Amino acid sequence: MINVFIIGIGLIGASLGLALRDSSLVSRIVGFDINNESLRKAREIGAIDYFASISEGAREADVIFLCTPLSSFPSLIEDIKPLVRPGIIITDVGSTKQDVMSLFEDLPQNVWAIGGHPMAGSETKGVNGADRYLFENAVYILTPGKNVPGEVLARLVNLLETTGARVEVMDAAVHDEIVATVSHIPHLAAVALVNLTEGRSDRLMLAAGGFRDTTRVASSNLEIWEDILFSNREILVKRLNDFIDSLDSIKQALELGDHDYIRRELSSAKNIRDSIPQMRRGLMPGLCDIVCIVPDKPGVIAKLGSILGEENINISDIEILRVREGDGGTIRLGVASPEDAKRAVSALRANAIKAWLR
Amino acid sequence: MINVFIIGIGLIGASLGLALRDSSLVSRIVGFDINNESLRKAREIGAIDYFASISEGAREADVIFLCTPLSSFPSLIEDIKPLVRPGIIITDVGSTKQDVMSLFEDLPQNVWAIGGHPMAGSETKGVNGADRYLFENAVYILTPGKNVPGEVLARLVNLLETTGARVEVMDAAVHDEIVATVSHIPHLAAVALVNLTEGRSDRLMLAAGGFRDTTRVASSNLEIWEDILFSNREILVKRLNDFIDSLDSIKQALELGDHDYIRRELSSAKNIRDSIPQMRRGLMPGLCDIVCIVPDKPGVIAKLGSILGEENINISDIEILRVREGDGGTIRLGVASPEDAKRAVSALRANAIKAWLR
Repeated sequence: MINVFIIGIGLIGASLGLALRDSSLVSRIVGFDINNESLRKAREIGAIDYFASISEGAREADVIFLCTPLSSFPSLIEDIKPLVRPGIIITDVGSTKQDVMSLFEDLPQNVWAIGGHPMAGSETKGVNGADRYLFENAVYILTPGKNVPGEVLARLVNLLETTGARVEVMDAAVHDEIVATVSHIPHLAAVALVNLTEGRSDRLMLAAGGFRDTTRVASSNLEIWEDILFSNREILVKRLNDFIDSLDSIKQALELGDHDYIRRELSSAKNIRDSIPQMRRGLMPGLCDIVCIVPDKPGVIAKLGSILGEENINISDIEILRVREGDGGTIRLGVASPEDAKRAVSALRANAIKAWLR
Repeated sequence: MINVFIIGIGLIGASLGLALRDSSLVSRIVGFDINNESLRKAREIGAIDYFASISEGAREADVIFLCTPLSSFPSLIEDIKPLVRPGIIITDVGSTKQDVMSLFEDLPQNVWAIGGHPMAGSETKGVNGADRYLFENAVYILTPGKNVPGEVLARLVNLLETTGARVEVMDAAVHDEIVATVSHIPHLAAVALVNLTEGRSDRLMLAAGGFRDTTRVASSNLEIWEDILFSNREILVKRLNDFIDSLDSIKQALELGDHDYIRRELSSAKNIRDSIPQMRRGLMPGLCDIVCIVPDKPGVIAKLGSILGEENINISDIEILRVREGDGGTIRLGVASPEDAKRAVSALRANAIKAWLR
């Protein structure tokens, strides 16, 4: 049974707590944060069993998760060093791994340092964004220090797999090269795209859903991202060069009227992106979608539930697509089979609700 | 009372039909598409009253919406020209406006040509993605031809406002400059970002939610986008230069270790993006969010509805956040007031459902 100590109870720390608390491998989860409000909330929602000082928490722990910003790692490691028991696992959840691994070299020889990076997040920051299933199907990278024995690594992998994460072990340098390409360059692109509007209201007025999606990451925490970008700047500069070259070739093709080149670029991008598997969000395997138009009235969602419940049709997924306040909205319902979907459409129509198969 | 004729029953055409059909200004909606299946579906869901040939439809229409790809406009305009009545309004829904406006110059003098561009879309293409509320709160640009009288323009504005759209009138050249910045450059950036991965599975494995969002538009229809990019290429090349310059400055700042520059860029982008108003999706004004953890069992959504219904608490919004199949999931519920939210948390907890205020 493992005693877990989580230092830094933000979105990731609290979600880890919620996810690990149901694990049969875990005996208890202790938390520390400089913000007492976060600690109280984390205990209320069951993300931690109780909170303790760093020295109390570190002394008792079998696994310590560092979930604070990178900048506080040096002082945390100083604090922890004299307290921890031999054989303890120390891991983190930061976005770059080479810098962390060199900080971990300060730890005693009999302590196992394993870098970590869960590829999961949420728009709601801090403990309020905590989600019991945040890591479900998310890739969780581990970058073990050189001397970590296989059975120690396996212990952490087993623990993390109880969160639903897909754990992958790799070298810190490989990790940093990959995240430069799939995370840091996209982040810088979003920043440059937003700044290209110069904040002019006539331009922002026309910034539809596509622009909001493409630039969502530009709304992220500034300090964290300044840290990330500079901690990975060598690789980042190389990949930024490649990105600029690629845009330059597109520009030339447009100037020359080279339709073939543009078509090839668009088509390659579509093929690659369509190959990224999309997570199905619904509860229970839902295969068939129905769309219905409902009035904007109190109780309408409960009513949909009861209409389908009377027919013994289970709602696997539900999504409010669009709404006009005081008028109505469109709702997507996912059900398990085409037969259920057809019966659902009939039942809804019998209740004067416009509905059809999507 | 206006007779509407929609040519091209895809996502936009069918959504326009659904939205306009409830308008008291409209007497009937006729549709045409080369795909009979789309027409049948459109009639089934009530997006059109009936379908007709182009000549029948054009002869009777007061307003014609061209909702096909740009490439079929020249032949459509040839077909329509000899048929339409004087005083008819012809409009389109294409993504660039200068090219369309020059095609419209072929129309007879007594026909009113008004370019249109609704800034709305959906991931589900074609008539199956049709949404009665697609245009709700969406900006809908109109670019009237030179000789269009104010009262004619006003007639189209009034008609479109019944869809819930916010209509803005502007010059076609201004429109094309703005969409280059907020739509076409972001599209090219997404294409280049995806291609930077070279489709390598080790990279795509780490492409988390952020990458999926940033590059969503790269999955769009290839032919439509090839048309859009080349029809706007002059302005696009200029803005692409500005984008490349901006990325180049970021690269230099990273190389030089210029933290101030990077911080300013990040902070400017965050401020601008946070200023873009976000549409509230929920039914009824919902202000307070609750998160609850539910088991993955049939009827769980209906059960949430009935627990809150018994307490007379209305669910304004509902979103399935994340799910583990066969285990459970997290659901966000929006309710109208902090009091309702507190009572909802108590009621859910009394039914052994973990819940808290977000």
